[in-house]
Amino acid sequence: MDPERLCVVLVAPRNPLNIGAAARAMSNFGFSRLRLVRPYEAAFREARSAVRAGHILAGAEEFQTVAEAAADCSLVVGTSAAGRRELQHPVRRLEYGGSLVRRRLASGRVALLFGSEKFGLSNADLAHCHWVMRVPAREEHGSMNLGQAVAVCLYELVRRPEAVTAQPERKKRPPAGSLEEFTRLLLDVLRESGYVHQRVEASTGMKIRRLVRRLDLSAHDAEIWLGMLRQILWKLGAPGSQS
Amino acid sequence: MDPERLCVVLVAPRNPLNIGAAARAMSNFGFSRLRLVRPYEAAFREARSAVRAGHILAGAEEFQTVAEAAADCSLVVGTSAAGRRELQHPVRRLEYGGSLVRRRLASGRVALLFGSEKFGLSNADLAHCHWVMRVPAREEHGSMNLGQAVAVCLYELVRRPEAVTAQPERKKRPPAGSLEEFTRLLLDVLRESGYVHQRVEASTGMKIRRLVRRLDLSAHDAEIWLGMLRQILWKLGAPGSQS
Repeated sequence: MDPERLCVVLVAPRNPLNIGAAARAMSNFGFSRLRLVRPYEAAFREARSAVRAGHILAGAEEFQTVAEAAADCSLVVGTSAAGRRELQHPVRRLEYGGSLVRRRLASGRVALLFGSEKFGLSNADLAHCHWVMRVPAREEHGSMNLGQAVAVCLYELVRRPEAVTAQPERKKRPPAGSLEEFTRLLLDVLRESGYVHQRVEASTGMKIRRLVRRLDLSAHDAEIWLGMLRQILWKLGAPGSQS
Repeated sequence: MDPERLCVVLVAPRNPLNIGAAARAMSNFGFSRLRLVRPYEAAFREARSAVRAGHILAGAEEFQTVAEAAADCSLVVGTSAAGRRELQHPVRRLEYGGSLVRRRLASGRVALLFGSEKFGLSNADLAHCHWVMRVPAREEHGSMNLGQAVAVCLYELVRRPEAVTAQPERKKRPPAGSLEEFTRLLLDVLRESGYVHQRVEASTGMKIRRLVRRLDLSAHDAEIWLGMLRQILWKLGAPGSQS
């Protein structure tokens, strides 16, 4: 996927905060080509003067029609949050539509259209689209905020499916000997504190042993715990501790 | 996953628009439990008076500490957009972290923490977290907008992985006979128009046949095309057409 090939097209946006939010989401997720069709002049001017994502807004192109804004794109996709029943277009959920857009971005330009805050994309706008991508929001809960819709769609494009099962942390595990020393020290501390009664010591030992294994400690944290336990045991005045 | 079990916790939010945007994203994606830790009073008041997502803001709970806001949750997850190197916590990408949160929501409550717009989550806030979930935004492009970060994280939770390969449209396909009639009519039209020369007719026929198959027509659209072609052929005065 070449992010340079994606054109985010805002059709008739009215709110400068939303234009700025769209640009900021683009910047966050690594996209830069912003196009505006008939933006409210004052809104566009105000958005341009905002601090964030300035380079994207400075480079934004302005068009009078959707046809002109999408002329160099080989795939034109409309977006919609609610499941509008009157749509004459194939509607694809974002999860699936996103994969199609990503694939197309490997070879050509794609225009992703977002409608105005108030009316969404008109039927005339949608007639330029090959299909419509639907953000799976709950219909009964109204439309999505424009900046949030842009962020969610772009996130789906940069999302890495393989990261779902990735092993994100490789923490070093303590050797079993450390855990056993941890167990022994903890038992000593508990015995010195009067927590463990001689009568039930054997079964308590087993319980504590399992308890320690369930902690899922890193090697580093195990060392810290051993140090703390040694100190506690010394303070308790146990005969076996290094005092 | 029970969405009622997720607590979206905004820590020290300052901007009423962001509080409102977070509530709106929750409403869009079907979540309702919003908690605020030390919100700027004026911001919270102003957000409450906004029109959208009113029921979520009306039911929002206020706390003085992260510990209190997350007390009834069995998993506490911090969020971060940039890859903060100083984090002492395991950091999981949203794709993977989302799947862990979803799994936990089947059995218990989860707190998802979002930091203030200006400072993010402090180290003191993060000390309450089991791990940190990272939205895969580009580090060099700064922080994400709070409302957009909430929307992207919640989208990941409602995302349906199986929808990636789902067959989203079940358009009725035309029988091969219709496509063949389409091909024959188009060839007739092209011959009458002088587009096809007798000399190369056989190879053109094959090309046109493939061209028509590549259109990926629905049964309904095929009928419309057949009608148009019959009309054009009639107008061209072909001997074989129904005039």
